[in-house]
Amino acid sequence: MSKVLHNTLRSYVNLTTLGENCLFVKCFSSSSPRYRAKIIDGVKIARDIRNELKAEVNEWVAHGNRQPHLTAILVGEDQASHAYVSAKMKAAKYVGITSETIKLPATISETSLLSYIDQLNNDNGVDGILVQLPLPEHITERAICNAVTPHKDVDGFHIVNVGRFCLDMKTLVPCTPLGVHELIKRSGVPTLGKNAVVCGRSKNVGMPIAMLLHADGTGETGAMDATTTICHRYTPADQLAMLTRTADIIVTAVGIPNLIRADMVKEGVCIIDVGITRVKDEKTGKDRLVGDVDFDAVVEKAGHITPVPGGVGPMTVAMLMKNTLLAARKEVVYNILDPGAVVQKKASQLRP
Amino acid sequence: MSKVLHNTLRSYVNLTTLGENCLFVKCFSSSSPRYRAKIIDGVKIARDIRNELKAEVNEWVAHGNRQPHLTAILVGEDQASHAYVSAKMKAAKYVGITSETIKLPATISETSLLSYIDQLNNDNGVDGILVQLPLPEHITERAICNAVTPHKDVDGFHIVNVGRFCLDMKTLVPCTPLGVHELIKRSGVPTLGKNAVVCGRSKNVGMPIAMLLHADGTGETGAMDATTTICHRYTPADQLAMLTRTADIIVTAVGIPNLIRADMVKEGVCIIDVGITRVKDEKTGKDRLVGDVDFDAVVEKAGHITPVPGGVGPMTVAMLMKNTLLAARKEVVYNILDPGAVVQKKASQLRP
Repeated sequence: MSKVLHNTLRSYVNLTTLGENCLFVKCFSSSSPRYRAKIIDGVKIARDIRNELKAEVNEWVAHGNRQPHLTAILVGEDQASHAYVSAKMKAAKYVGITSETIKLPATISETSLLSYIDQLNNDNGVDGILVQLPLPEHITERAICNAVTPHKDVDGFHIVNVGRFCLDMKTLVPCTPLGVHELIKRSGVPTLGKNAVVCGRSKNVGMPIAMLLHADGTGETGAMDATTTICHRYTPADQLAMLTRTADIIVTAVGIPNLIRADMVKEGVCIIDVGITRVKDEKTGKDRLVGDVDFDAVVEKAGHITPVPGGVGPMTVAMLMKNTLLAARKEVVYNILDPGAVVQKKASQLRP
Repeated sequence: MSKVLHNTLRSYVNLTTLGENCLFVKCFSSSSPRYRAKIIDGVKIARDIRNELKAEVNEWVAHGNRQPHLTAILVGEDQASHAYVSAKMKAAKYVGITSETIKLPATISETSLLSYIDQLNNDNGVDGILVQLPLPEHITERAICNAVTPHKDVDGFHIVNVGRFCLDMKTLVPCTPLGVHELIKRSGVPTLGKNAVVCGRSKNVGMPIAMLLHADGTGETGAMDATTTICHRYTPADQLAMLTRTADIIVTAVGIPNLIRADMVKEGVCIIDVGITRVKDEKTGKDRLVGDVDFDAVVEKAGHITPVPGGVGPMTVAMLMKNTLLAARKEVVYNILDPGAVVQKKASQLRP
């Protein structure tokens, strides 16, 4: 018996004792190193979704509808923002969504920006409106987010969409949380009754991800029924490690490289890394992007893991396309001012 | 040395080793049994709040304003609903809020009910509107909740109020979560960076409590900065116990008697029991109300605990009065349709 196989079998005995043989058997039967995680390929999954959406758009147009249309508003000269919007418009073109980018100077007043949005709200040729954040300091982001009419709010930032989402009603959900949800679903990772830990409580990412993880799977957002812990800047390091060690799923969206280390996770965990930080590579001296996870070490222990870049990032763009199609089809029925028409599960019918 | 004191001192040594002397010293210096919890007296705290509100209402009226006015709509003959509304109206009278109860038959149509609400929405003499839930099966609760104009929605159930709340903006917050928040604050229990566990994920109680526990204390809802875990029907019993044992604060809102037992909590924990279940007392044969906590056992181990009844219940009513005064003073500025006027922290200024 070769030494490697001998060690492997010895490990098998130990692991069976620990009740973790199931995962082991999976790895044992493959040629990959023991516990080497399945890399969740966000680039590929996003491409699959774009192709699915392309087919849906084709069908929509084949039924006599015009192509969905997305308009982006880009304020100022921030390079990253320009790159993001450009990627979104490229994706739109691929799936058959027509698009336009309105570029405005950083000096634009809030009132002028609001009047651009108002015009787009009233333009029947526009299905989705996207105002690229961040905005210059003198503009109130919340005012802008609320100015986009809810049914064109493909970023899911309008207060009515947030309310609907938190009540588990069908709505336009923010793209990054939606992308995280999709990555977990498409990876086949079980979530019902599992332990999930979310690091970060931002209103656009951490909070909605915690909503999607913990809420009732029979609700309109198709949530994941996981026991869910929200950690944040005031979670002490030892408590964070205690919690992540019990987690079956970790979603981290903090922007602190190496926040999640191998000694902080259990074997087989699914890790979705939403963090993006630019660091200088010590070997090459060049800048590179890293997430919140010590990837090289954790990949040896996790069951599933997203890389950075190439994990959540491409999904955010794909989900924006999904929301634009949803908006074009008017799938979300807004009846807040016509409440008699609301057809929704009673809160008491959701499973607490 | 008396035997009791000897035992006490022996415990002191053990406990010091465990690093729990701080709590012990507190108990050691009192005449109460070791670790006997401080009972959080919801009846007294609610009375304090009613008296504070009474003074505020007096001041409001002294400045030339009319008394705040609360209108309740009560549909059908449910005894518990009648008792709740009656308690609310009694509290209103005490604090100087005028009130009216509109009693409607269980057979009323949704359209008729909506037209009653519409009339109240347009009545300048009405500050707060409360539709007592549950409603008959043929009426859609969400439609009714959305029909009450947000600035009179003293139950905090309108989708715009839910959205504002989840984004940490000043708003009318549902009364029970607000009462739980107030009980924790007034008990002086520290929350920043502590571990909180919420049992139950209902949209009116569990979910908003989790929001108040985890969110940024510098936000407009004055949240508690705790690491927060949401447990629910799919949380396995062993995982629930593991999580509650690490909790500094447990809020349970499930309706399962003895869900939380003494072996599931750590010494000194603060427990807020929102559960209410009617059970038959084995000794007396009479019905009595119990919460989710095995009170008699847990009280010997907890640091703070609410009784049932007499804990959260009275606070819900007191918070309704607080919301009615807030509504009368128009303290929440709704500008969702006039977003240029919004003055709010940028999401990026909240601490993730």
